Amino acid sequence: MNTKVPEEKRELLKDVQSEQDSRNIPLKHVGITDLRWPLVLRDRQKGEQHTVAKVSLAVDLPKDLRGTHMSRFVQCLQKLDIVNLSALEEVLDDLKESLLADRAFMKLEFPYFIQKTAPVTGLTSVMDLNCIYTMEKGEQFTQKVEVQVPIQTLCPCSKEISTYGAHNQRAIACLEIEANEFVWIEELAEMADAGASAPVYSLLKRPDEKYVTEEAYDNPRFVEDAVREIALRLEADLRITWYRATVKSFESIHNHSAFACVEKGWK
Amino acid sequence: MNTKVPEEKRELLKDVQSEQDSRNIPLKHVGITDLRWPLVLRDRQKGEQHTVAKVSLAVDLPKDLRGTHMSRFVQCLQKLDIVNLSALEEVLDDLKESLLADRAFMKLEFPYFIQKTAPVTGLTSVMDLNCIYTMEKGEQFTQKVEVQVPIQTLCPCSKEISTYGAHNQRAIACLEIEANEFVWIEELAEMADAGASAPVYSLLKRPDEKYVTEEAYDNPRFVEDAVREIALRLEADLRITWYRATVKSFESIHNHSAFACVEKGWK
Amino acid sequence: MNTKVPEEKRELLKDVQSEQDSRNIPLKHVGITDLRWPLVLRDRQKGEQHTVAKVSLAVDLPKDLRGTHMSRFVQCLQKLDIVNLSALEEVLDDLKESLLADRAFMKLEFPYFIQKTAPVTGLTSVMDLNCIYTMEKGEQFTQKVEVQVPIQTLCPCSKEISTYGAHNQRAIACLEIEANEFVWIEELAEMADAGASAPVYSLLKRPDEKYVTEEAYDNPRFVEDAVREIALRLEADLRITWYRATVKSFESIHNHSAFACVEKGWK
Amino acid sequence: MNTKVPEEKRELLKDVQSEQDSRNIPLKHVGITDLRWPLVLRDRQKGEQHTVAKVSLAVDLPKDLRGTHMSRFVQCLQKLDIVNLSALEEVLDDLKESLLADRAFMKLEFPYFIQKTAPVTGLTSVMDLNCIYTMEKGEQFTQKVEVQVPIQTLCPCSKEISTYGAHNQRAIACLEIEANEFVWIEELAEMADAGASAPVYSLLKRPDEKYVTEEAYDNPRFVEDAVREIALRLEADLRITWYRATVKSFESIHNHSAFACVEKGWK
Repeated sequence: MNTKVPEEKRELLKDVQSEQDSRNIPLKHVGITDLRWPLVLRDRQKGEQHTVAKVSLAVDLPKDLRGTHMSRFVQCLQKLDIVNLSALEEVLDDLKESLLADRAFMKLEFPYFIQKTAPVTGLTSVMDLNCIYTMEKGEQFTQKVEVQVPIQTLCPCSKEISTYGAHNQRAIACLEIEANEFVWIEELAEMADAGASAPVYSLLKRPDEKYVTEEAYDNPRFVEDAVREIALRLEADLRITWYRATVKSFESIHNHSAFACVEKGWK
Repeated sequence: MNTKVPEEKRELLKDVQSEQDSRNIPLKHVGITDLRWPLVLRDRQKGEQHTVAKVSLAVDLPKDLRGTHMSRFVQCLQKLDIVNLSALEEVLDDLKESLLADRAFMKLEFPYFIQKTAPVTGLTSVMDLNCIYTMEKGEQFTQKVEVQVPIQTLCPCSKEISTYGAHNQRAIACLEIEANEFVWIEELAEMADAGASAPVYSLLKRPDEKYVTEEAYDNPRFVEDAVREIALRLEADLRITWYRATVKSFESIHNHSAFACVEKGWK
Repeated sequence: MNTKVPEEKRELLKDVQSEQDSRNIPLKHVGITDLRWPLVLRDRQKGEQHTVAKVSLAVDLPKDLRGTHMSRFVQCLQKLDIVNLSALEEVLDDLKESLLADRAFMKLEFPYFIQKTAPVTGLTSVMDLNCIYTMEKGEQFTQKVEVQVPIQTLCPCSKEISTYGAHNQRAIACLEIEANEFVWIEELAEMADAGASAPVYSLLKRPDEKYVTEEAYDNPRFVEDAVREIALRLEADLRITWYRATVKSFESIHNHSAFACVEKGWK
Repeated sequence: MNTKVPEEKRELLKDVQSEQDSRNIPLKHVGITDLRWPLVLRDRQKGEQHTVAKVSLAVDLPKDLRGTHMSRFVQCLQKLDIVNLSALEEVLDDLKESLLADRAFMKLEFPYFIQKTAPVTGLTSVMDLNCIYTMEKGEQFTQKVEVQVPIQTLCPCSKEISTYGAHNQRAIACLEIEANEFVWIEELAEMADAGASAPVYSLLKRPDEKYVTEEAYDNPRFVEDAVREIALRLEADLRITWYRATVKSFESIHNHSAFACVEKGWK
């Protein structure tokens, strides 16, 4: 296994990627994807949180260059220590420099755990959300944050027309935003909960279960209602310059889902 | 593209797979997997149903042979016309013969559509189930059928302790059986529905929605209840010689699932 | 089970969805998703092909209406017989009319099987592609077709620097197009193959395997090369008004993928 | 939100789960599944490693009890600090005690990162494996470890019959073991690499790429070869009392996979 060869003794190997390309086609993105990578994130409650991300990294490629150097993407990512906006922008700057590119692009998808407190017993537990960060650096650094929050929705129609009961189900509220200031994942999760018939928890005891059952019955929400309630909150937050909110409910009476989507500036 | 070469003109290519192997290790399975393939199945209502399956095919390999001939699996599968038990057994016999094996193995995973009739309006629609057929032929032909049926469960605890409402959700009832006689997928789907708080449909109008909402509230079922109700029906069916039933509910108050499992002859 | 109630005897149930909404937020999309549905498609070779699709259907919703009527999506879809462009446009027209909407939207994702002929033996077999049709009808009918074609790529750098051999792997060429005339899935699959080091087949005998091994070694292609070759062919096709092509290779020397993307009109 | 109610003021809520059940059916498993949870594991190189697991927890249920208490599963899991065998056994003991069960069961699925050193440049990087721990405690504590290691396989037939080149691809070597002593994930990963045509890395520079390309060409391996090489090493390890090894290769010339499986004591 000890095959390491000192650098000066290695033969010169042709750099095929740096060949000229005559096909005259610039590439929007070239890079690596589906790379799993451990990350440490900032966490509002505990300061730090470890997770595992699926990572995509890319740059653009001018029309006269044949290829990019794929190993450098991994080397730039290796320098990332704790994830925060400036550290992520540095990765993009580093990519642009290492790969002689005009633009660099990064996408991180990871589960993130938030603390939830049961409404009656006050017991706490963590619950997982999916998050997706998408970033680009050309002249400017732009970024989009997507958070997918599990919530409960209870059908207003079912409640209204039925003598008793009402169908309800788990739903996913997906909030995508662009912002001119930092927004915590936890803040977006709270907006999602505000659109729900009731929030979702990892740990509930009987008094909590009674509470959330009645809370959901008291707050019937179509996906249309849920997404509008969330949009009201996104619209009211002055840090948020663009948003799209989607609620998708795994209907308990069907084997398919219902969904509704609002997008700022649409139409 | 017209590169076809007459057989007599092709050079002789060594059959590496047929080399002797001295490592002295027989293989339980060797074959192909993750092959998507169009199938035509028998259907209780319409006679025939088209679907798309994910297929695995394998044989055993004696300790002194280096490898099997992978292309023959596809050629054996190509001869399959309409899926029924005897046609599937023929594929296995063909595999044993073509590959000089003692045992052949096949797994088919596919969506299957059943007709559902809305309880009040009588409107009909199709709904998808996942099915998995697993078959083996050594001396004898054995087969297992697995059907995954979406159902609704309503929590008896939530109903009992709450002043109004009760959390409910979509669940998957998974029925695995071995039988000494043919059992329709549709029959297993009916047993799953009998274990549910209410069945699940693709098409429900308002009067139907009222009906299934009240039906679910009238029949609260834990996953434990649902799986036992299904087990009672599987146990009572004399064609069924072995079964395992699992119900998994996508809890509407949690971001995780609850499940319960019964297995004939367990313990 | 025989609970069907004649229409005149059913009680009047309130239409909650039709309530006025004062939140002043129009919805871009409201509908159903993750519905599996059997489809019959046109097929260049055999005339017809059966498959199973994952379907999304949606309409927009004006700001003053609380909700849409979800069951009507399924009823509109039920009228679809054989899939072709005019039949799909009819579904969208029907959705707009049934749901009193300005715009209707549909997405169909399904495996599609094409015939492949082995290069030397001439043996034929089917191979699966993933297809995604996305359609919208506002004033105008617009549609996008996406086809994901498995191909082989062989690394030019690895070939150049190594004394023998070259790493190669399966890759997915994803072609998304808008067109002003009908384009067969099979035509897009051929463009993908033209970008490959070698095409991929379900059935290859030894002489075919020799052929494709040497073909790939003779045509080394980075993902950057593959995507540019495909773009040249998309650009040259006068029916195609917009395209995006992405090639992603499941690197055999890494546990992650490499990808490259070209988009018409980008920059 | 501040709805916490002191314990003495909460109303008494019926314990429906503790009702008698007259259906006379014992349950093999009842519990929770699909729960995502952050874990800290022991790591051979750095001492500790953070990851995110998908967790299933279950107990058996006697025939005369209606249900189990689902929230206690989460509470038992919350006590788990650093994952090691004795800590995991404690969770199972705790589950048995809290839920008055004869047997407790746990399954943890998580990505695990190992250090890999590039063969020529000596550059290091982490690479992800999938791991699955399955444990049961009745009278005795039993456990199974599964590790899924990405490797490269190069086809001996393709090499033999082709004038130049040979198709190769990423494959997954899946090693499942039972052992009477602790075995590191890293040790199983090394056995998987020994069965490969060449190992897989996250970071390779040109001299490394030349090395692994030639290494793979020098070590052609069918899935049958790879799995037998791995089995030889598992068999030789005296700590390992049972094993099953499966190698599945994502064929670069097909859109399906080839696989082979060895199981100790089979037949």
